[in-house]
Amino acid sequence: MKKRPSTITDIARALNIAASTVSRALHDSPSISNETKQAVIKMAKQMDYQPNMLAVSLLSKRTKTIGVIVPEITSYFFSTVISGVQDMVNEAGYKLVICQSNESFEEEQKLIETLALNRVDGFLISPASKTMKFSHLERLRTSGIPVVVFDRDCPGFEADRVLVDDFDGAFQAVEYLIKTGCRRIAHIAGPKNLTTCQHRMDGYAKALQKHHLSVEEDLIERVEGFTSEDGEEATKLLLNLHSPPDAIFAINDAVAIGAMAIIRERGLRIPEDISIVGFDDEPYSKYFHPSLTSVWQPVYELGMLSSKILMNHLSSEIDNPHYRYELLKPELIIRKSSKDL
Amino acid sequence: MKKRPSTITDIARALNIAASTVSRALHDSPSISNETKQAVIKMAKQMDYQPNMLAVSLLSKRTKTIGVIVPEITSYFFSTVISGVQDMVNEAGYKLVICQSNESFEEEQKLIETLALNRVDGFLISPASKTMKFSHLERLRTSGIPVVVFDRDCPGFEADRVLVDDFDGAFQAVEYLIKTGCRRIAHIAGPKNLTTCQHRMDGYAKALQKHHLSVEEDLIERVEGFTSEDGEEATKLLLNLHSPPDAIFAINDAVAIGAMAIIRERGLRIPEDISIVGFDDEPYSKYFHPSLTSVWQPVYELGMLSSKILMNHLSSEIDNPHYRYELLKPELIIRKSSKDL
Repeated sequence: MKKRPSTITDIARALNIAASTVSRALHDSPSISNETKQAVIKMAKQMDYQPNMLAVSLLSKRTKTIGVIVPEITSYFFSTVISGVQDMVNEAGYKLVICQSNESFEEEQKLIETLALNRVDGFLISPASKTMKFSHLERLRTSGIPVVVFDRDCPGFEADRVLVDDFDGAFQAVEYLIKTGCRRIAHIAGPKNLTTCQHRMDGYAKALQKHHLSVEEDLIERVEGFTSEDGEEATKLLLNLHSPPDAIFAINDAVAIGAMAIIRERGLRIPEDISIVGFDDEPYSKYFHPSLTSVWQPVYELGMLSSKILMNHLSSEIDNPHYRYELLKPELIIRKSSKDL
Repeated sequence: MKKRPSTITDIARALNIAASTVSRALHDSPSISNETKQAVIKMAKQMDYQPNMLAVSLLSKRTKTIGVIVPEITSYFFSTVISGVQDMVNEAGYKLVICQSNESFEEEQKLIETLALNRVDGFLISPASKTMKFSHLERLRTSGIPVVVFDRDCPGFEADRVLVDDFDGAFQAVEYLIKTGCRRIAHIAGPKNLTTCQHRMDGYAKALQKHHLSVEEDLIERVEGFTSEDGEEATKLLLNLHSPPDAIFAINDAVAIGAMAIIRERGLRIPEDISIVGFDDEPYSKYFHPSLTSVWQPVYELGMLSSKILMNHLSSEIDNPHYRYELLKPELIIRKSSKDL
């Protein structure tokens, strides 16, 4: 396994000519005869010589590599964003270096530093939930490396941002529940420090207010993770309330699925006794029984657009002082876990 | 955005000293006075100078980077494998370059070539379904770059391989169905050219044979994709048979979920009329109604073990002529979509 890759020196030695001659022959220099060029190319093929791209990168100062930092790649959301990114950058001849921060600020800093030192041409970043300061991103910019932030906002740091309108998605979901007759609408909310979760909470509250319903603290349960098990625990607490909810708006589909399992276990009917709405519209959600009403997000498009903006930075020779702010629209997909209008 | 990163020359110019002095100062050379060293370090910080890791890599011939090529990262299976890989290599100070082949042989070849030219230290590869020849992997080896193949086999190419015992998983599933009284067991099979799918088919056939049941061609439906929609189509054909099946063993959970939807649509009961077993045991599978019986695979462990074997190659100085062949054991998880014993 430890065989050393062939070098220009190896080819030179085999042909008994100077290394500089080999190098010039491989670069098709006019100072080298065709006969020598043919001999060098033949030997290079025979020795499986591969030009050192690192050396090439060093000269061009470009590595044609994009760093993508996501909190986790196992979620449907981020892996689909990455698909969109990959399809876009492949066309432009770029490779992706994908890394996950596991929601850790320290890990995120370390990954960005390492990739920046490796001269990644640009970054697509969805900040970790623990990230509150953005000096590490500021530092990239002062080094001349463009950054596009996606899905999660970065308050206080000006940058190109491509986000989903979480406020609007939540508003659509909760207003629909109200219009179908629900009055005690609970929200299983995500971590406070995630902007996406804050915005969904705001949309929930705004819809209630618009329809003159009060926001009741005991109808709001917070989960730290995004799993179905988290949804189960939160739902148990909600169903134990003196006056339990007649609808649950869950922070995502996985949490909604956990809620449905507990509601069924208690012998309650969905949606007759309790309506359920999720967020994400994962591929499986329509196959649950009842099928899950959920907020669809343009996830693949999010990846495509973020990388398109980054590609524009990389191909333009002038500094653009304007940062783009794109807010993609989600859409409520109505199925059987909520009542008809 | 186009600000050029600071170089040693910039620092030298700012301090009005030679670039070679700056370089030696940054490498703590004894030939440079402490006073000069302090001044250089101060200026380097001020100018946000970052040493060029490409140049460092070029000297050490190591980039501390592992290339991971998977058919797709959006599937639960591969994204979980990558989690296992990431956790293992992070500890050893390696970064991951993750790329997806989208099941294309040409794309896989291109990705491997590009990453090899960028001097990736080693590869973890799960071959694309369209990959039949392995000369591109052979080429890596002759260049001295170690390769570990995981999940999907590479017939005719000797390498370290970490696979799941798909034959055994399928055998367990089908034998259980037989023991619970099923006699006409259908199989919704995957693409013929995937070794994992071949092995599951073999396990299905072997279990039938052991219990003196014949393998009937009309009870086998092949799907080209792995989606729930594929499962729906295949199940429609099976239910339209003159003598329809009393059980379906599906190639994965997504296909099984599609099958359940069609069975319910036809007014048939699960498992009383038809039992269903999937493969993968995805996180959602226990939340379906009825909950899905499925074959669990040690996916995270697969990622950990594959990368551990690769790390061993990278840290050992001697060639190891023995290739490891690891076959991880799956386990049938019995839930409510199949009958009790």
